[in-house]
Parts: sequence; C-alpha cells; structure tokens
Amino acid sequence: MKLKADRATLLKALAHIQSVAEKRNTIPILANVLISVAKGRLTLTATDMEIAVVEEVAGAAGLQDGTTTAPAAVLYEIVRKLPDGAEVELDQTGGDAPLALRAGRYATSLNVLSSDDFPSMTAGELPHRFRVPAAVLRGLIDRTRFAISTEETRYYLNGIFLHTAKSAGGEMLRAVATDGHRLARVETELPAGASGMPGVIVPRKTVAELRKLLDEAGEEVEIGLSDTRIQFTAGTVTLTSKLIDGTFPEYERVIPRDNDRILRVGKKDFSDAVARVAAISQERSRPVKLSLDKHLLTLSAASPDQGTAKEELDDGRVSYEAAPMEIGFQARYLNDITDQIEKDVEFAFSDSAAPTVVRDIDSPSALYVLMPMRV
Amino acid sequence: MKLKADRATLLKALAHIQSVAEKRNTIPILANVLISVAKGRLTLTATDMEIAVVEEVAGAAGLQDGTTTAPAAVLYEIVRKLPDGAEVELDQTGGDAPLALRAGRYATSLNVLSSDDFPSMTAGELPHRFRVPAAVLRGLIDRTRFAISTEETRYYLNGIFLHTAKSAGGEMLRAVATDGHRLARVETELPAGASGMPGVIVPRKTVAELRKLLDEAGEEVEIGLSDTRIQFTAGTVTLTSKLIDGTFPEYERVIPRDNDRILRVGKKDFSDAVARVAAISQERSRPVKLSLDKHLLTLSAASPDQGTAKEELDDGRVSYEAAPMEIGFQARYLNDITDQIEKDVEFAFSDSAAPTVVRDIDSPSALYVLMPMRV
Repeated sequence: MKLKADRATLLKALAHIQSVAEKRNTIPILANVLISVAKGRLTLTATDMEIAVVEEVAGAAGLQDGTTTAPAAVLYEIVRKLPDGAEVELDQTGGDAPLALRAGRYATSLNVLSSDDFPSMTAGELPHRFRVPAAVLRGLIDRTRFAISTEETRYYLNGIFLHTAKSAGGEMLRAVATDGHRLARVETELPAGASGMPGVIVPRKTVAELRKLLDEAGEEVEIGLSDTRIQFTAGTVTLTSKLIDGTFPEYERVIPRDNDRILRVGKKDFSDAVARVAAISQERSRPVKLSLDKHLLTLSAASPDQGTAKEELDDGRVSYEAAPMEIGFQARYLNDITDQIEKDVEFAFSDSAAPTVVRDIDSPSALYVLMPMRV
Repeated sequence: MKLKADRATLLKALAHIQSVAEKRNTIPILANVLISVAKGRLTLTATDMEIAVVEEVAGAAGLQDGTTTAPAAVLYEIVRKLPDGAEVELDQTGGDAPLALRAGRYATSLNVLSSDDFPSMTAGELPHRFRVPAAVLRGLIDRTRFAISTEETRYYLNGIFLHTAKSAGGEMLRAVATDGHRLARVETELPAGASGMPGVIVPRKTVAELRKLLDEAGEEVEIGLSDTRIQFTAGTVTLTSKLIDGTFPEYERVIPRDNDRILRVGKKDFSDAVARVAAISQERSRPVKLSLDKHLLTLSAASPDQGTAKEELDDGRVSYEAAPMEIGFQARYLNDITDQIEKDVEFAFSDSAAPTVVRDIDSPSALYVLMPMRV
C-alpha cells in the first residue's frame, strides 16, 4: 500500500475518522484507522462497532494497492502538526511491516495491526432510501438533540426518533426527542421514497458525528434505512450506524391539545431575562418562576444563600390576555428551547402543574413540550 | 451605602475582584466582595487571606457612604448578564438589610454579611518601594512562571524568587523559578529604590492574579515590599499578597558555567519538529532525543505501542560544530522554554547526563537550565 496526498486533504479526512475511532483502548484495533488503496483510490474507515465512517479521499493519489490499519489519533496528531502545504507519503509493504509516513525530512514508522482483524460493519440491505437537503437535516437535529435523554436505563430515549407521521399538511418526516422533562418535535415534508419507512431511534453518538459532517456537507444527504441500521452519505463520507433496539414511547399523548393561555414574547428579551434572574443561584437546576398578568410577565428566582432576583417584561414586549397565573421551570430547559428559536416565542399554558407547549412563532414545524417544576 | 455605575465600569472591576474571592465556601465571607463608599468614592475588595485585591472604581458615583459585603461570583454573573449600557444602582440601608441591585426593570436583593467580619489584610510597613514598567514585569513573569514547582512539599519552590543579584552589568533585579527539572532566570536593570530589598518568594496564585492585571495595566507598576508582604499597584488596582516563608535554594550552583557544545537553531523549526516527533506518543512526559552531528540535528521519539518518529534539521537550519552526542528531554519542557523565545535558540550542552543551558540569542537577560532524561 502506497499513496501520496497533501496535508490538508489527509487532515480533513482524518478529522472525520478519528472522532469515531475508540479512545479507550479496550479493543486495540478499534483505535485504528483502516487505510485502503484499491484501484488507486484511497478510503479511510473507522468504527467503534456501533458506528462506522468511511471516507473516500478524492485528493489522494494511490500509488500501490493494499490495506493496513494504524493508530487513528496518533496519525491525526502527526498530520495536524506537519507544516501547511506539506506533501505526505504513506507506505506499507504488507503484513506486519510498519507504516512509514514521510513528509520532507520528517519520518515516522507506525505500528500496524492487520486489516484482516478490522471489524467490518456492513449495513446489510437498506430497503428504504431517500434524500434530504443538508440544511433540513441540520434543522431536525439541532432543534431536537438537546432533549435526548442521557439516562442509560431509559436506553430507548437515548436518541432521536425518526419516523413518518400524519400531520395537518399530510404525511411528514418527523424527529422527536424527549428525556421525560421536555420533548422536542420537529417535522419536514416527507422526502420521496421515505413513505413506509420504519420508525427508528438514532443513537446520540451517531447524531453527534452526523452533525459534525453536516457542517461541511454539500446540498443533499442520502439516507438509507433498515429496521436495524441507518446510513448517511454526505459527499464522500458515509456514516453507518446501528439503531437503538427499543420502542419509543407514544409521545403524542403527552402533547397537550387544549392549552389556551397564550403568552407571546421576543426570544431575546425572554432568554436574557431568564439568564439574569437565574444568575442569583449557582445550582445546576435553577428554577425560574414566571408570573403572568395582563400583558405583564414577571420572572423571578430565589436562592436561600444568595438572595432573590426578578425582572419585569411588560406591555409592548409581551402579549398575554388570559387569567393571571404562576408557573416554574428549570432555567436551563427554558434556554435550551429558546436557543432554537429565531425571533418570537409562544407559550401555551394550561395550569401551573401541567405540561406547557412552546412554539417558534415563525416556524410552525417545531413544537416543544416542557414540564413545569414546583417553585 | 448607595451608588450608581454603568455596567461596563462595574463589570471590569468585578472581573478583577471575583477571581481572588474564594470559590470554596469554607469561610462564607471570603466568597464576598467588600463594597465600600467613602466620601463618594467606591472601592471593591476581595481576599482569600493570602491575597487581597482592592480596586478604586473611578467611574462610579457614590451617592451615600457606607459598606457591606455580598457574594462576589453572583454579583459578577448578574452584572455580566445585564444589557450593554445598562445603568446599575446598588443600595444597602445598613446592618443586615439586603443589597438591592436595580437596572431598568431588573432587580435583585442579595444576602449580605456584615463588613465588620470582612478580614482586613493590611500590608503593614513596606520599607522597600520601586517602580517597574508593566512590560518589564510581564517579561519577568512570563519567562519564569512555567518553571514554578507544583509540588506542595517543596513549598519554597511554589513561587517566583524575586531578588537582587550582581551580574556582569552590575546589580540587577532577578526573577527565578525552578521545579528541580528546569530552571528559568530572567533579569532586568535594578529599578531605583530596589537596592537593599530582601529576596522574596511570590506565590503562584499571586503571580497569576498579577499577570491578569498586567494585561490592562498602564505604563508602570509600583511595588512595595517587606519581609512578609508584597504589594503591586497598577492604576486603580492594588494587589497585596503574603510571601512564601521559606528559603529559595542557591540556584546559581546548578547553572553550568563550562558547557561548550553549542547548538543554534531557529525557534520555530525546532519547536515544530519537537511537536511532530513527540506526536508519536500520547504520554504526558514524552521524551524526545536530540542526536547531534556536525551541522545536523536529528530529533526522534519512540512509543512501544505506536512506533517511532524522527525529523532532521540540517545545515542552513542548525549550526553545531562540537563532537557528536545524544541527549534526551521531555518534549513539554523543551516547548515551555522555546515558547518564551522569539527567534533563535542557543543550547549549550556538556554531556548527555548533565544540565543543559538554553538561551534566547536575541535576549541575553533570560537563561534557562534543563535537566536531561535518559532516552
């Protein structure tokens, strides 16, 4: 195996690859990147047995076919530290022979593990295939991933539930995540070919790796799907992942339909006030109380040690015409939601103990549900 | 106590203050800032009993004299989150009454502790007083602080030794730090008034706080000194610190005088090569071997798990005319020193087991000693 590539080309590919490779050294070969030159084309692969990333490195020149595996993190660090514009040569003569990397007067000899032992994560048949614009996929992820549960015992909540659902606008593609305290539901037009796809739970790590790739993705991402696997192809990178084997709860039942106390407020006014009021307490789960009166919102918080804080947002900045009420939320949960809202927020309350619906006034495709906390 | 100030003015002062205030809540009042208005002038004070920072806040309008103390971190967080340009009012009616902070429609009521209980850290008599340009003081600190020991048992090495010493150029002001593996010695012209000052060890935390202040300091810093205290006055901020009560070792004895194998190399060529070669290993104390031959420097490193790496720097980039030799150093220690060097480095070696002297060719006021490690 022998190839040449410039530093920038290799670095970009290795950056994608090394974040998937295992950092913990339990199974040594999972810390390695599979380097393969076939018919003069270079591909790099990393896997942690849950996710596999395969990247075709278009800018590289394969000089001699062959495969080997070498430590991904070390290779990435070395290439990162080479001078800008360096031309890099990789050369491995087969078997256990070390991988030689040369760039100018710099040379390393890296220990390899046989590519025969590199686990292949085949996707198998992917009967459902469709395309989604990269920007739309980014929107589905960003507006739901904050609500993914981190509780390992509720493993079926440790991902984004991607599925089709009937909505006012017909059949849609939906992403939903919830941790039991809040829920995020975002939908988009059903892409051609997605009808009939199974509902699947995409694991949190897959979501994170995919999201990084989307920052550089072109126009469209191709998605392939079976009951157990999902595959995303963005340009020259293919990410294949196992799905979470579980049943996502029937989330529609927890979305209130009849909340009729409507508060509208500018996102920036609201989230800045939440942050200022919450600053009184240094606890992680700082509660903030919203006190509502006709066109008046008072936010307040208290800490037994530090004192109290409040801020009023009044007529001209809020609209509220229902009966007065008080309700409390975790400051962080409020801001996780408003972070995803562009301009104006709409809250629909029932009472101070019932779930509240939050919407982006300019983007009806997203809906959030937030459980109150006692204050 | 009552005062008004704009947000930016208060924020800048609180930023200095809050980093000195205690974060651990062992003695609650040490987490507080002393807010004092006297004759219409506001001063803020924080102390951890080792260091005290006092800042006169010139831009604030004291409306009513008085003093109180309130949680420094919370006050800082709140002021930081107020909108740009906000006018802030602080009001405390005395005794245990809470501190009211108002800015527009935002209001907090902060729990206070009596200023009677706030520990005063008086400097006492400071018989030695002199002035140092802020840029010179920054240079003394930056080029020595990396070598301060973090071993608590060798408490007398946990700071910078500031003292006067005879040098070729006459009497100088010197800063020295060492952790037993490396030593940094930087000197500057003796400021008027410093002659006869005692040698003092300035603790690491004091060095760090002082360094932050120096980023904003004006032309000159005034230093006051006794056997037990040091005081730095930079503009409107005064930092007073206890000194480390111990004896700094006789460091001159470990500085070799007769090292005559001289290597000269560009700082960037050298430090980039060290980083690339060290990238083969992920250990913190990665050793790098320097192999020297006539006008040729070969850097190399090996990791049993990952492989080997080497880089050559040859004629035109290095100058070396002495006998061939090999010597090893911790990569991090080499880079800590070269980070402080502008352009060209000079190494003076004796043999592979003896301390090496490193100099900045363009700045003879700084000298570094580095112990080799076996490779």
